[in-house]
Amino acid sequence: CVGLAALIDLVHLMFYPPRCDDDDDDASCPIDEEVAKLLELKAQLGGDDGKHQFVLKTAKGTRDYNPKQMAIREKVFNTIIGCFKRHGAETIDTPVFELKETLTGKYGEDSKLIYDLKDQGGELLSLRYDLTVPFARYLAMNKITNIKRYHIAKVYRRDNPAMTRGRYREFYQCDFDIAGQYDAMIPDAECLKIVHEILSELDLGDFRIKVNDRRILDGMFAVCGVPDEKFRTICSTVDKLDKMAWEDVKKEMVNEKGLSEEAADQIGEYVSMQGGRDLAERLLQDPKMSQSKQACAGLSDIKLLFSYLELFQVTDKVVFDLSLARGLDYYTGIIYEAVLTQAGVAPVSNETQQGAPAEESVSVGSVAGGGRYDGLVGMFDPKGRKVPCVGVSIGIERIFSIMEQKAEASAEKVRTTEVQVMVASAQKNLLEERLKLVTELWNAGIKAEVMYKKNPKLLSQLQHCEESGIPLVAILGEQELKDGVVKLRVVATREEVRSIHSAHIMFVLSHTDTQICLDSNETLKVCM
Amino acid sequence: CVGLAALIDLVHLMFYPPRCDDDDDDASCPIDEEVAKLLELKAQLGGDDGKHQFVLKTAKGTRDYNPKQMAIREKVFNTIIGCFKRHGAETIDTPVFELKETLTGKYGEDSKLIYDLKDQGGELLSLRYDLTVPFARYLAMNKITNIKRYHIAKVYRRDNPAMTRGRYREFYQCDFDIAGQYDAMIPDAECLKIVHEILSELDLGDFRIKVNDRRILDGMFAVCGVPDEKFRTICSTVDKLDKMAWEDVKKEMVNEKGLSEEAADQIGEYVSMQGGRDLAERLLQDPKMSQSKQACAGLSDIKLLFSYLELFQVTDKVVFDLSLARGLDYYTGIIYEAVLTQAGVAPVSNETQQGAPAEESVSVGSVAGGGRYDGLVGMFDPKGRKVPCVGVSIGIERIFSIMEQKAEASAEKVRTTEVQVMVASAQKNLLEERLKLVTELWNAGIKAEVMYKKNPKLLSQLQHCEESGIPLVAILGEQELKDGVVKLRVVATREEVRSIHSAHIMFVLSHTDTQICLDSNETLKVCM
Repeated sequence: CVGLAALIDLVHLMFYPPRCDDDDDDASCPIDEEVAKLLELKAQLGGDDGKHQFVLKTAKGTRDYNPKQMAIREKVFNTIIGCFKRHGAETIDTPVFELKETLTGKYGEDSKLIYDLKDQGGELLSLRYDLTVPFARYLAMNKITNIKRYHIAKVYRRDNPAMTRGRYREFYQCDFDIAGQYDAMIPDAECLKIVHEILSELDLGDFRIKVNDRRILDGMFAVCGVPDEKFRTICSTVDKLDKMAWEDVKKEMVNEKGLSEEAADQIGEYVSMQGGRDLAERLLQDPKMSQSKQACAGLSDIKLLFSYLELFQVTDKVVFDLSLARGLDYYTGIIYEAVLTQAGVAPVSNETQQGAPAEESVSVGSVAGGGRYDGLVGMFDPKGRKVPCVGVSIGIERIFSIMEQKAEASAEKVRTTEVQVMVASAQKNLLEERLKLVTELWNAGIKAEVMYKKNPKLLSQLQHCEESGIPLVAILGEQELKDGVVKLRVVATREEVRSIHSAHIMFVLSHTDTQICLDSNETLKVCM
Repeated sequence: CVGLAALIDLVHLMFYPPRCDDDDDDASCPIDEEVAKLLELKAQLGGDDGKHQFVLKTAKGTRDYNPKQMAIREKVFNTIIGCFKRHGAETIDTPVFELKETLTGKYGEDSKLIYDLKDQGGELLSLRYDLTVPFARYLAMNKITNIKRYHIAKVYRRDNPAMTRGRYREFYQCDFDIAGQYDAMIPDAECLKIVHEILSELDLGDFRIKVNDRRILDGMFAVCGVPDEKFRTICSTVDKLDKMAWEDVKKEMVNEKGLSEEAADQIGEYVSMQGGRDLAERLLQDPKMSQSKQACAGLSDIKLLFSYLELFQVTDKVVFDLSLARGLDYYTGIIYEAVLTQAGVAPVSNETQQGAPAEESVSVGSVAGGGRYDGLVGMFDPKGRKVPCVGVSIGIERIFSIMEQKAEASAEKVRTTEVQVMVASAQKNLLEERLKLVTELWNAGIKAEVMYKKNPKLLSQLQHCEESGIPLVAILGEQELKDGVVKLRVVATREEVRSIHSAHIMFVLSHTDTQICLDSNETLKVCM
């Protein structure tokens, strides 16, 4: 009988709760699992009432969206989808799980974070880890060589969640990609235009879009004397420059990755460079950099890119930044990442110093990123046919967090319904009349509500309007019914209008043939 | 070495492919699995080129949605969500997987169809099987006693797929539910009003909404002499009446379920009854039925329901039908199901006779269903507190299938983008001007496209417009640039307008301060 020992452990745990750092790099925290197991055991040994022994929660790292969060989510999606559609994108959808082998070999070390389904007979399946690999599979499977598509859907990573910072195990990705053989840098520039439009429209504060090219990075590593086999690992160290000081990055290169101090210092000089088209031109003349054909190809493309970005009127926010590396292996050309530069609006992590300098704007995290990946689709094609692709992923979860914080800070209430008018009664026994009127409103396309009570109090009907932000209430009473009219009240101002002859706001009861309209200002008018 | 034997099996399979009936009731087809395993083995042994050894497909029973299908899906969702919002519903979202124990004991025999996740350490998880159980878990967890919400999301069942008939392993559910303690039958009636509105608006052809009540069914079984313990199993046999003749249903009751022939005949009499409020009144007087308190309670509620349905103006489609049973265990009161009654529009299964009588309309499958479930939330509440609920689920996958068929049959092309104007050039070397103009259009909120080529042919630009249904093309040429205007062509009629003084359709180039507007009729005008 293990019961007693386990219970003692449990009691111990209650008094000395273990701590598990949210930022642990392990796929899952062993102590959390122990607690889960013990709680399960406790449940098996019998809870308080023996009937409801389960834990009432969502799975680790996941969350429900309540109506308020959904209202914010809908608003953000509408802005983003509006932008994608303005640029002529189609949309597709793929299943939430793929054959396990479809995902195999695409994510390097991160593969351990993939959720597998249980083998219940039949195919071995895994939950999708991103939307890019399913997109590439879709293109290869359907032999599509040209498409501009967006895809907004949830993806799954058995990562260590840090939910206060918007890091979940189930989260949305919001991808826009252009596949096809086109003239250089035109689709790439459109992706940046899209990021610019979306971040401006969402009004998240100032932002910057960093741009670099994988070929420039590789060329830079080559001319700085990094051995070929260390390109990827040095690249992922450079990728940490947005979170770590150069001194620490250098230490990692030299001490952990075994790079010579000289090579590291040369890299250090390059990765401190930021600029625009001029920087690309300068580096093309750089005696060392210009020795690399790859780097020159990348630098010429950066030049071309900036000329298109000028036509697109977005150069105010775009910076050519040699320190931008981005983690994913599959990028082959241009890469980019957008960061918010205003502290305060974004979720502030514990590490952020309160006294951060105000002049030098502090980067508070990536909200979009992407790049060119010309080889991925070919990995799926039986004949290895390549389909060049460039795309961008909007960091929607971080944007949700910011919008939620803004909504919380603002005095304005977030409405979770769009109801325009509540049909209420002032006296008893008017359910039938209320239902008749609300039916007419629904049939006319008006968003309307009625309380599900035979005799609700007028006060509680009005309270419901105030709580859920319904702007108008149509009040039925004996006198109004006799006169064939309805009293309409503006909830906020308590203005009331009773007659159909009233000038601005009026309402016409069912017994006439008059149509009731509600215009976009929530103003009622009669349309004959 | 198993290679040779397996290869022989494989060759055998190629010449004598096994058949596996889609309608098999087993959770998965063993032969399919064998084939999958052999294909995998073949891949391991080395495919044609040794490099791409995987199968390029989606998981069994799932599908991608292409842009055309997505355009149809979006249209259907907009109609349905519009209706839900008109009725004042909020929306929530829950994770795609739940703790395994959350789903345990909710689905009876169907539990075997639940997808489990692999135990990778930590919690045991399963993919959601429907949206109702997560909804109940959400209410209990957040102690919510009142909500009117909709939830549209995918659910997962390891069922045997019949994809030609719209039966998938991953499919959408589209649920609207009202939770809360209210006066009888008002929310129930609103659910039926919503079904009526949605099916009318989607224009799927004629339909009928069958209504019954679990208490009437139970009362009926009791007065017909069905032993208590056989209520559920007899109920699920009655549920087959929409697919089987009464004779076969009776056989199953008597031969398989061991019911007396007399009891079966009595049930047979009742379940043939259909009507409206009058039928409920007649049955309340029925000497046998009226002996059951439960049945009387149900019949009174049906009467009340119909009085509200009259006020909601939906009685034309609603039928009180004693043969309606519905499978799920958790219903406690009113139940309903909507069926399309026009053959031909719906996916016709193989069994359907070609010469079906035209007068007696043939039911072609359920497109919505639901009912009252007052006990489910209490199963999750630690104190067993009940939250009465009534809801409806729209059978969106079947509706997609029908809409797809309609789109295919219709001459009208389904547009997959909403692009209003294509920016094209008639001469070479005008990329810069095209990008400038399209930027102005985007910045003005106009949906516009440009080809990603430096020097595209005018013909290929026009062809793209025709293929993707873009109504307008703005053509730039040397002369237009000199004059500061743009030539605008209506793609369908080939009408062209060149001057900004033109009456109806015109377009103003960048160098002026004039705003360009596109009204809802895709007509261009200048707004000063």
